[in-house]
Amino acid sequence: MIRFEVLKKHRHSNARLGRLITPHGEIETPIFMPVGTQATVKALTSGELVGAGAQIILGNTYHLYLRPGHNTIGKLGGLHPFMNWDRPILTDSGGFQVFSLNNLAKIDDVGVRFKSHLDGSSHHLTPELSIQIQQALGSDIAMVLDEPAPHDAGVARARESLERSAAWARRCLEVPQKEGQSLFGIVQGGMHRELRRESAERTIELGFPGYAIGGLSVGEEKQVMLEIAEYTAPLLPEEAPRYLMGVGPPEDLLACAQMGIDMFDCVMPTRNARNGTLFTSRGKVNIRNAHYKEDPDPLDPECPCETCTRYSKAYLRHLFMADEILAHRLNTLHNISFFLNWMQRIRDAIREDRPIDWRYDGAGSSSTVS
Amino acid sequence: MIRFEVLKKHRHSNARLGRLITPHGEIETPIFMPVGTQATVKALTSGELVGAGAQIILGNTYHLYLRPGHNTIGKLGGLHPFMNWDRPILTDSGGFQVFSLNNLAKIDDVGVRFKSHLDGSSHHLTPELSIQIQQALGSDIAMVLDEPAPHDAGVARARESLERSAAWARRCLEVPQKEGQSLFGIVQGGMHRELRRESAERTIELGFPGYAIGGLSVGEEKQVMLEIAEYTAPLLPEEAPRYLMGVGPPEDLLACAQMGIDMFDCVMPTRNARNGTLFTSRGKVNIRNAHYKEDPDPLDPECPCETCTRYSKAYLRHLFMADEILAHRLNTLHNISFFLNWMQRIRDAIREDRPIDWRYDGAGSSSTVS
Repeated sequence: MIRFEVLKKHRHSNARLGRLITPHGEIETPIFMPVGTQATVKALTSGELVGAGAQIILGNTYHLYLRPGHNTIGKLGGLHPFMNWDRPILTDSGGFQVFSLNNLAKIDDVGVRFKSHLDGSSHHLTPELSIQIQQALGSDIAMVLDEPAPHDAGVARARESLERSAAWARRCLEVPQKEGQSLFGIVQGGMHRELRRESAERTIELGFPGYAIGGLSVGEEKQVMLEIAEYTAPLLPEEAPRYLMGVGPPEDLLACAQMGIDMFDCVMPTRNARNGTLFTSRGKVNIRNAHYKEDPDPLDPECPCETCTRYSKAYLRHLFMADEILAHRLNTLHNISFFLNWMQRIRDAIREDRPIDWRYDGAGSSSTVS
Repeated sequence: MIRFEVLKKHRHSNARLGRLITPHGEIETPIFMPVGTQATVKALTSGELVGAGAQIILGNTYHLYLRPGHNTIGKLGGLHPFMNWDRPILTDSGGFQVFSLNNLAKIDDVGVRFKSHLDGSSHHLTPELSIQIQQALGSDIAMVLDEPAPHDAGVARARESLERSAAWARRCLEVPQKEGQSLFGIVQGGMHRELRRESAERTIELGFPGYAIGGLSVGEEKQVMLEIAEYTAPLLPEEAPRYLMGVGPPEDLLACAQMGIDMFDCVMPTRNARNGTLFTSRGKVNIRNAHYKEDPDPLDPECPCETCTRYSKAYLRHLFMADEILAHRLNTLHNISFFLNWMQRIRDAIREDRPIDWRYDGAGSSSTVS
């Protein structure tokens, strides 16, 4: 089981510095969790993740259930030894991927039927199966199966997903828990404050050691996401960790940490790396830009990662244009390092009671970050 | 300029233990040179190559001329700083790739006209341009432009390529040399002994600090390759390094080192890695095999590389089946480590005057390697 301690509240915002204690070690919060979809944070080794300062990673239940299969991973001792990662792991429930990767997923009160995006085989994900899979994976933190409403859902549709999510959360809790694994509840309610409040109350009533805000970053305007997150965060217990699922770019991590969110995950640093979009202390860089063809300077002179200390922008651009595997490696290593160092800066500001008055403007070199 | 010293001759074969001194450090021979086609040994960082024991790597003039361009690399200080590799580099002449990647390449006595495989643009590679490119790349060892004959060339066709190669070698020598760069000659002559002898004599007469055997491993039977290599090697000066281009699998490295060959290069370890074919001390492993799905053991328990010390065959198979970038990384790291350690074993046997009586049977677990 996990334990969570709020070490310090920030004088200038609702941010908190926390310590999350898990069977695989302690995590300092607020924290960003790199996403390791298929038992690997794409392009990186587990050793590199440790080197970059990753304290916890996320594994995707949907992908691992389909390939190589949770039973295979279970027989090999779980996800930790399988991918040689001995720090904490959080697994999602698989629900979000079922919906986002399967247009034809059919949902009813029992669960959701879908066809594998790999081979078209038929599957039926239920709350019970989701927990069973996550138990085989052996994550430190498991998530309840929920049903996020579409971002444009009206009250009736959002209530439907709220009710179904509440019922499924209860069923997840009824599965005998695995020793050492903690189950987090998820607040739904779409973009409707009254439903968010109700979902928060009902999820808290069920009782979990941690709470997530789900159903955001699903296509709504950024301002709406921020408003709903800001409204929902203080509805959650002070003494439990709060996890905002699927967020986000550096500026949103900054904003949401100051709302009192403790945990984040997003594919942005890894996916953007493979598209050549790199986050730096001077703003976003599109490494394909011909401007960098003969640029001998490091990508980000303030970054301590191997990419920035050993290679030039000219080399990174060449590797990307030549579609070399090393491009994806070096780009990913940098972006992950940037996100993790970004959170470290936020934690340091909370610890030292400095205002978090910097911002991140993704537009490029005109941005201000200090 | 390079210097070469034969430190020891093997009591049980024609193998020699040598030391090749270059502006970027010393190399122990016999040596295998990993191929870094596009300024990267595919999937690996320069730091990993050092860790795996790579003493020298090969860069491809054809690819780097087309992208990012030798002038770009030259402006950035050459290939060494560009790819952050401070050990020796050998560059080929570009000729072999022109012929193998361009069905429509047109050759005459001046040079070879071809269209870029990237954008169809027209180019004209001459001996002078090849040297100019290699000088901009700043390799420690450059190769003369030659024209390999097809493996099934009769005497007339093989003589034509011999004569053209000889004339081009002379023109390469007439280009003012770059300080610190050494130019190797290449023996051609197809599969015809009398032509090999003549080519060796004429190349030696021109005078080079090192000699390569070219035009092998181009489609002929393995036995033919071995016979021609064995015939040609002793025709080359004892006091100069001998380089067999494009060879080969572990068993051929073993055989040819015992003929007195000092240097080898081949894309086999890197290319096969990306196809899932892995070289181990127990023979070749096809990591796609379902047999490995739940295999918790390391790929090669005798191998000290990160792949073998940190991950299981089950994980390697999963990564490969899921087409993860990490699969290519870990597979390549292992294969390169295996080839480099293989050469280390050969050097140790020469040093200690032990017979090189082991063999490598690529067929799998039935093979004997000790």
